Amino acid sequence: MEETFRKPELLKRAGAEFLGTAFLLMVVVGSGIMGERLANGNAAIALLANSVATGTGLIFLILMFAPISGAHFNSVVTLWAAWNKDLDLHEAAIYLLMQICGAVVGTGAANLMFELPIFFVSQKVRNGSALILSEFIATFGLLAVIQAGVKFHPRLVFLMVASYITAAYWFTASTSFANPAVTVGRMFSDTFAGIRPTDSLPFILAQLAGGATSVLVFRWLLAEEK
Amino acid sequence: MEETFRKPELLKRAGAEFLGTAFLLMVVVGSGIMGERLANGNAAIALLANSVATGTGLIFLILMFAPISGAHFNSVVTLWAAWNKDLDLHEAAIYLLMQICGAVVGTGAANLMFELPIFFVSQKVRNGSALILSEFIATFGLLAVIQAGVKFHPRLVFLMVASYITAAYWFTASTSFANPAVTVGRMFSDTFAGIRPTDSLPFILAQLAGGATSVLVFRWLLAEEK
Amino acid sequence: MEETFRKPELLKRAGAEFLGTAFLLMVVVGSGIMGERLANGNAAIALLANSVATGTGLIFLILMFAPISGAHFNSVVTLWAAWNKDLDLHEAAIYLLMQICGAVVGTGAANLMFELPIFFVSQKVRNGSALILSEFIATFGLLAVIQAGVKFHPRLVFLMVASYITAAYWFTASTSFANPAVTVGRMFSDTFAGIRPTDSLPFILAQLAGGATSVLVFRWLLAEEK
Amino acid sequence: MEETFRKPELLKRAGAEFLGTAFLLMVVVGSGIMGERLANGNAAIALLANSVATGTGLIFLILMFAPISGAHFNSVVTLWAAWNKDLDLHEAAIYLLMQICGAVVGTGAANLMFELPIFFVSQKVRNGSALILSEFIATFGLLAVIQAGVKFHPRLVFLMVASYITAAYWFTASTSFANPAVTVGRMFSDTFAGIRPTDSLPFILAQLAGGATSVLVFRWLLAEEK
Repeated sequence: MEETFRKPELLKRAGAEFLGTAFLLMVVVGSGIMGERLANGNAAIALLANSVATGTGLIFLILMFAPISGAHFNSVVTLWAAWNKDLDLHEAAIYLLMQICGAVVGTGAANLMFELPIFFVSQKVRNGSALILSEFIATFGLLAVIQAGVKFHPRLVFLMVASYITAAYWFTASTSFANPAVTVGRMFSDTFAGIRPTDSLPFILAQLAGGATSVLVFRWLLAEEK
Repeated sequence: MEETFRKPELLKRAGAEFLGTAFLLMVVVGSGIMGERLANGNAAIALLANSVATGTGLIFLILMFAPISGAHFNSVVTLWAAWNKDLDLHEAAIYLLMQICGAVVGTGAANLMFELPIFFVSQKVRNGSALILSEFIATFGLLAVIQAGVKFHPRLVFLMVASYITAAYWFTASTSFANPAVTVGRMFSDTFAGIRPTDSLPFILAQLAGGATSVLVFRWLLAEEK
Repeated sequence: MEETFRKPELLKRAGAEFLGTAFLLMVVVGSGIMGERLANGNAAIALLANSVATGTGLIFLILMFAPISGAHFNSVVTLWAAWNKDLDLHEAAIYLLMQICGAVVGTGAANLMFELPIFFVSQKVRNGSALILSEFIATFGLLAVIQAGVKFHPRLVFLMVASYITAAYWFTASTSFANPAVTVGRMFSDTFAGIRPTDSLPFILAQLAGGATSVLVFRWLLAEEK
Repeated sequence: MEETFRKPELLKRAGAEFLGTAFLLMVVVGSGIMGERLANGNAAIALLANSVATGTGLIFLILMFAPISGAHFNSVVTLWAAWNKDLDLHEAAIYLLMQICGAVVGTGAANLMFELPIFFVSQKVRNGSALILSEFIATFGLLAVIQAGVKFHPRLVFLMVASYITAAYWFTASTSFANPAVTVGRMFSDTFAGIRPTDSLPFILAQLAGGATSVLVFRWLLAEEK
């Protein structure tokens, strides 16, 4: 009976992860296209637009969807939740799948809104050890922010994540993807926010390593004294 | 007697919708003019100014007027409230009228502040299926944000709407009008934020369709489990 | 005895108005100089810097000083408070004087920080009916925001005023001085934020008229129903 | 026994000061590099990026680490806390050391992320009395904000400090280092945010003087009436 109760609930949570990640990619990819088109070649202005849009985007998306699904929108966050037993394996698998589907659909929607092919593979080169280090640090920081936020300021996690990502667009050389599902989505738009598919696997591995390291460090740092 | 009680109340709510929508259009149109004049042809900087001004504008306008009228400032929001029986038809008609009057007056005030004719019809072409899709998605998202906000964070709706519109200026190709009254107002200024009258009807239809679709989807997503 | 109690209190309130207005002018004038120097002639970028600095400046200044003096920093606000009997005439006179002294000292400090003469009179022309209308509307709006904020969201007045001024830099043609004390201070720096002394009197008269009109309109709009 | 209790606690606080200051320098130095690289020589856009990244960076860093260590990240703040007996001398010494180590490590991490030598000494000239005055005022203001914030709005100190620093990047000629540990870190990157080592001592002395003056003034201003 509990099973019959949880299934519709999980369906809605899956819907929230799908819609939320789709909107997140629309924001990231769409604002990148708009910024680049209008900025007359000044990439700093394009990135300013991209980072302001993503930061404000995360504010409304997390506030909207956190009460339904937790507003993960990020494979690393879902893996962390599964590790913590906040999600069981079945739920986590659904979340991961919905995030990737949402990311791809959201990228396609952004492409269409800007009169581009619905999907066209990015040629943007993003490789080298400096970018890998950037993604490691970016995801280390994101998981740190989330862990501290959940513990100390559960009602302000939306603000902490939004301000983190706004800053991280600028302080990492990779503009902080920090999210495997987002990385997958960004392969499908050959625009400002895109990434060449062959560069995405090293990004994702660095994200997983950065997230895992963050969990180890902050498990210690945030532990209660006896 | 209740009638005599409600009339002044409705009059004040009407005043709030009029003044709020007028200020909203002053912000949208005025900041567009100022941004374009100063930006030396860099449209990304003009849009950055326009989006920051509109986002901060919505913060103060919603906080000011929500306790009086609900701070709709938007025909789609009023239709949704009427559908929900939060407004009766008479009230809704007044709201819709006040929003359009406010939008036109606010646009005229912005024009005057910048030494332009009080009303001069926009020639700005905004057509094509990509922009129609943009308006559909923009209004889908706006109504989604409002529905989730009213349910989960009634005291943060101002922040959710402001952050949504700031992001949506960038992630949609149309810069997210997402509001029939605003669309009408923007016909009367041939400046950065303007829209050619012949392009406004498709925009408004897309907004109505996007809003209605959002209500259907989020009615399901936000429904309580039994 | 109450007299001996209130005097030191008033001294501190006077100190808060002096320091707060001085910092406000440092922010307005200093960020204008910095923005103009770095922006390579793109005035929109300078104004973006100026408006972001002033908006964030108002956040910290109002939060700091409101618990001491009410954080007026503005002659129109003080006159409104005196009209409301929140200040007696003696207190109001001290406030008005401290605001002007603070404004002048803050402008001088900004000039010195940027290696300019401590005081040098602005030659910046700001005249014409469009700018006068702008100041009328700017101050109408500022007093509206404050009156609604004090009534509905006393703990968010800081955010409402900060977001209002950020937007008003852009949606009025005058960049919204909206403050007689600030207008006086800005005469003493011949830089981005300056104003020619002969233009300041019409600005101040428009501010007084806009503020008074706002009080009339919002006294009605915000009145409680019986 | 209390000793054995406090040691791990202090270790975690030290870890928080180290990590927090390291992230702060990553944000300041990294966003400076990114901004300068992308801005095509328009320093105002680079500084806009730098100031937005630092402001949002302080939001998440203070919220994350204040519940552990108080989130000082700044030698002047730690000296003030020691003067107030909130920290004993042993703790204060650890804090000061961790902040400097964190600042240096964070600068190195930013350099590495942008494919620069891990440490390379800045040649950026920052001298003259105007900049010394700027640092005096910048630190005077920062300590004022913190003292008023701790007293009146302990839950909003994060917002007050973040908004202060965002504004102070623009209203002081030095872009407001206002922090000896940060000043030390910034010597090790010859990029946008760097400072020549020979210029750092006058900066630090001005910061100490500004902080001390602020404590004197605000001790009076914030004192309770009897």
